[in-house]
Order: sequence, then structure tokens, then C-alpha cells
Amino acid sequence: MESIGDLGEFGLIRRVTGRPMGPDVLLGPGDDAAVIAAPDGRVVATTDVLVEGRHFRLDWSSPYDIGRKAAAQNLADVVAMGARPTALLVGFGAPRTTSVEWARRLTDGIVDEADLVGASIAGGDTVGSPTVTIAVTALGDLGGAPPLTRSGARPGDVVAVRGRLGWAASGLHLLENGLDGPAELIAAHRRPRPVYTAAEEARSLGVTSMMDVSDGLLQDLGHIAELSGVAIDITAALVPLPPSLAESSVSRDETPTIPSEGKTSPSESGVGGVPVPDPLHLALTGGEDHAFAATFPGGTSFPAGWTIVGHVAEGAGVTVDGSVPSLRGWDHFRS
Amino acid sequence: MESIGDLGEFGLIRRVTGRPMGPDVLLGPGDDAAVIAAPDGRVVATTDVLVEGRHFRLDWSSPYDIGRKAAAQNLADVVAMGARPTALLVGFGAPRTTSVEWARRLTDGIVDEADLVGASIAGGDTVGSPTVTIAVTALGDLGGAPPLTRSGARPGDVVAVRGRLGWAASGLHLLENGLDGPAELIAAHRRPRPVYTAAEEARSLGVTSMMDVSDGLLQDLGHIAELSGVAIDITAALVPLPPSLAESSVSRDETPTIPSEGKTSPSESGVGGVPVPDPLHLALTGGEDHAFAATFPGGTSFPAGWTIVGHVAEGAGVTVDGSVPSLRGWDHFRS
Repeated sequence: MESIGDLGEFGLIRRVTGRPMGPDVLLGPGDDAAVIAAPDGRVVATTDVLVEGRHFRLDWSSPYDIGRKAAAQNLADVVAMGARPTALLVGFGAPRTTSVEWARRLTDGIVDEADLVGASIAGGDTVGSPTVTIAVTALGDLGGAPPLTRSGARPGDVVAVRGRLGWAASGLHLLENGLDGPAELIAAHRRPRPVYTAAEEARSLGVTSMMDVSDGLLQDLGHIAELSGVAIDITAALVPLPPSLAESSVSRDETPTIPSEGKTSPSESGVGGVPVPDPLHLALTGGEDHAFAATFPGGTSFPAGWTIVGHVAEGAGVTVDGSVPSLRGWDHFRS
Repeated sequence: MESIGDLGEFGLIRRVTGRPMGPDVLLGPGDDAAVIAAPDGRVVATTDVLVEGRHFRLDWSSPYDIGRKAAAQNLADVVAMGARPTALLVGFGAPRTTSVEWARRLTDGIVDEADLVGASIAGGDTVGSPTVTIAVTALGDLGGAPPLTRSGARPGDVVAVRGRLGWAASGLHLLENGLDGPAELIAAHRRPRPVYTAAEEARSLGVTSMMDVSDGLLQDLGHIAELSGVAIDITAALVPLPPSLAESSVSRDETPTIPSEGKTSPSESGVGGVPVPDPLHLALTGGEDHAFAATFPGGTSFPAGWTIVGHVAEGAGVTVDGSVPSLRGWDHFRS
């Protein structure tokens, strides 16, 4: 079987070059660097590194899914700034014995996710590494508009979210415990589905601050609160919840294991003795769905897809129903 | 000792934020993405991944040197396109037990190298990884000029280089064999010194194609020959050579080892029985000095620092003194 070691450093890039580039890539792979359109005169840029065993598991996700996920989390960052993604650069480290087919499927995943927003892979680097590592940089164009930062929330604003909360974390819980359903939750872990139109929608609604939820709603709203110099209170009853895990079934092929400490909040006994985490806990602390959280002037009327989950006040920090959340005090949040 | 695991994902970015940003960084670390000036309306972008054990060794290079090298090789790619580097994004993977001091020195190296060209670290990502990995993305601005690609060489052009050839490869040979000098060669391996003014100089000389030498002059000129649809012949007697390794001394603390097969071309017996590679071989095949190789119209008069090493003709491929080089036929090149 042909390995990426056989291909050499330029091999993967050549494979990518075979795919058509979007109009924003003025000079693609093959030179010392790419040249990408930045008609706005500014470029939005972000980079994320995904590491085997930490951000994905080779036995839980296909290379195609890993590619989709790696692209999605970077594209979501660009969209969270209110920009249109234009191009990706992909650094890829893997054992030289990695099959070309594996790398091709990874690349296909990246390209297909980028296609959703009209972005292209403009360049990259392939290196040998004992640890499968994917470093994606995403670039975007603001189209003359101001960036949507984390610092613009004002007292009196409402907090709203667009996208799923806690789905990917639910899927991870299922995989960690050898459970094979609900399939939609496992799929959500493997392949996040950010609502890439969120920034455009948010601008039309008068958004004051915005970010993508990558580390959990509580933690990420903490960044908006800190950088905006405000307090944010979440109303637990308003938070959209992932489907319940109570009906999840044990896979015949796998033995349930105890979930990692701190990752889940045991609340009731599930199938096979595995504690079932609370949906509200998952919605407030689960990352990786790449929902968008944003603040808007009070009284904003939202279209379908947006859910008000809280409000902004004078002060500092994030509270839930007026109380400071604590990972040890999760009972507080149970409905 | 404080580790990067204690700092958390945002820690390193905060450390970086403490350094002043250049004027091109319109929005720095702390949001979902950075915003960087791209006054030209296009942005030059490149990414390189450096992996422990493959691109650097923790016992041979200090974290500061690794940072300098990681930045230099990406900045050189931007300069090779004829652009002014504006910003870097740094993805950093390391065991969570890595000391904060180690990471700080790495970051200092990156920032100091970027300072040489007025670029700043605009963002990044820090993740846990069993393998120390540094993924650097560099951005640059073309200032209204066309990019300097690999595809513009024309028959009749001369080939000239700016910077060192074979120095870093010589230093690597010394380290691999437990030799402690010449110190300037070991330093060249640890910290390349690209001549960042090369692109500006080349433009003023009417450059037709340009690239940075990262994989060795022969291999890299092969890319210019292929993309320009021309043949390139190198005149061996014109190639600037690194200092001879014949006088290199054996470190008292280390036992010489046999160099890796294929990496060096034994030509004479050195101290301690270690074969000494031929300087011309090192100059033609050694990468990592990040010299710049470029083509110019025939008859171009070069200022100090530039060395003509060959010429461009009709045809294809790269020859040395009219013959096709072969790694097995290195005797051909010995003077």
C-alpha cells in the first residue's frame, strides 16, 4: 500500500492541487507561499491544532470526519468574527507509513467542509510525525464590515445562540462508554455542523458581540463577559438541550467503561451501570458543536434558529439563574 | 515548576499578548481570530510544521533557537514571494508537563526573529501532544507588486543566490557525529539567518523567478525548472561553499557515530574515523539555511552578496556542469 512517505513532502499538496480552487486563491499550492484575495484590505486569520488521542481518536472517527471537523472548527472561528472564509492552509503530521488513501480521505473531508462556505485549501505542509497532527489555518475577508469581537456586549443586551449545544459532548460520552446510539449524537461528535450563515444573520440583527462555542457555553461566555467588562446571566430553562441519553443502548461489541472524572455529571443510572450525564450540564459545558453565541440589543426580535438564553448586566462573570456555577455544584442546574 | 498544563490553553497566548504588536496587527490574540492589515488587497500565506526529532532535537537546540528557526523558515517563504511579512500564527503542541519557561523561551525566539522583519505573533493555539510540534503560519503583504513565483525563469537568464549554502547541513553533520566545531556551522544549523532584504534587492535587479532554498539548491532549482518549463545548469566552480569540515574536532564528551546513510557523501577521512562530507555536496544538497535562489535577465550586474551559480536554458531539469547529478554519483562533483 502506498504510504505518504512514498509520496514525499509535495505529494499531498499535489493531490490537493488537483481539486479546483475558489476565486479567492490567486496562487495556490506549489510555490513558497500562496496568494489569497483580501479585497477588504484586512485579513481575518486563525489557527487550530488537532492532535490524535486528544482531539480525535483514530478508532472513533474516520479520516474524512477528522478532516471535516478540523476544517469546521477553524471556519467557525472566521465566521464568528463576521468574516467570509476564503482559504485554508493545512499542516499535516503523521507517521510516514500512513497510507495515501487515509491522507486523501482526510483531505477530502477538509475540502468538502470548506466547500460549504466557498473556501479552498491554498497551501500546506506534510511532515513525518509519530503523532497524527493536523494544524489548520483559516483566512477570511470582512467585506468592509467591522469584525464581530468579544468585547462589544453592553448591559441590557440579550444573549442568543445559533446551533447545537451539548450534542458533540453527548456523542463523546457515548463513545467513551461503548454505546452505539443515539446515532445523531455520535455523528455530532464526529462531524460538527456550524451554522455558517450565523454571522450574516447576526449582523442583520444588530449583533454587539459574537464568538463560537468551542469550550462550552459557560466558559466561552466568560470570555465575552471579561472582554466586554459586563456580567452575563444564563436562564437555565431557556437553554436548548441535546436529546436525552437515557435511552442510549450498549453496543454488543463494547464493554462500558467509567467516564473520565470531571467530564460528565452523573445524574441517573443508565444502561449497563453507566451514569447518564445531565443534558443541561452537557449544554452548558460541552464544546465542539461550534454553535455561535452572540449578544444583541434588548428587544431584538429573532428569526427561527436563534434562541435567547440569557442577558447582559453591569458587573462581571457568568451566572446561571443568578448563581455562580461550580463544577462541583452541578445539582444546582438540574431541572 | 509551572507547566503549560497549569497555564491552560489561553496561557501562552496571554504571555504573547504582553509583547507589543506591530501596526499590521489590527486585532491580536484573545478573540476567535486575529485581524491583520492586508493593504495590498491580497495576502501571502504559508505554513510549515516542525516536529521534534525530525526538524529539531531538544538536546541539540535550545527552545529559543527552535523558535528562531521555526519563524525564520516561514518568514523566508513569505520573503521569497516578494512580500513583506506582517504576522505569524503559532500552533504549539507539547506534553502538558512542558515548563512554562521552555514555552516562553520558544515564544521569545519566534518573536525576536519576527521582529527582524517587523512582523508580530497575531494568534495561536496551544494543545497537549506527546510530540513537541510547532506549526507556524506566516502572512505577508505584496505592496502592490506582483508575487515572485517559481514560474518566471526564461532561457538566457542567470541563476544567482543570496545567503549561505550548506552551512546548516554541515552543522547537522557535526552534531550527528558528536563534533563540537566549527561553532559557526553548528550555530548555522540551530538558527538559520535568511537575508530578508533579498526580495527587495532582487526586484531592483529585475528578478524573473525566486524561491527560498529549504531542501537543497539542486532540488529547489528543480522546482523553478519544472514550473518555468526551462533547464537550469549549475557551474560547480561558482557555487559558494561552506567552511571545510576537515578541521572539525571531536568533542571530548561524545563518541563519534556513523552518519545516516544518504545524508552525507563521504569523501575523506576526518578526525576519529568520521568521514568528512564534501563541501560542494553540502552546498548543493543541504537545506535549512534558507538562502534565496533567483533568476535574472542575462547580463544583470549584481551587488555584493549575490553570487551567480548557473544559467537558464531551453529544456528541462537541473544539471551540474552539463551533467545530470545523481546521489550515487557524487564523485562527479568533487573538485
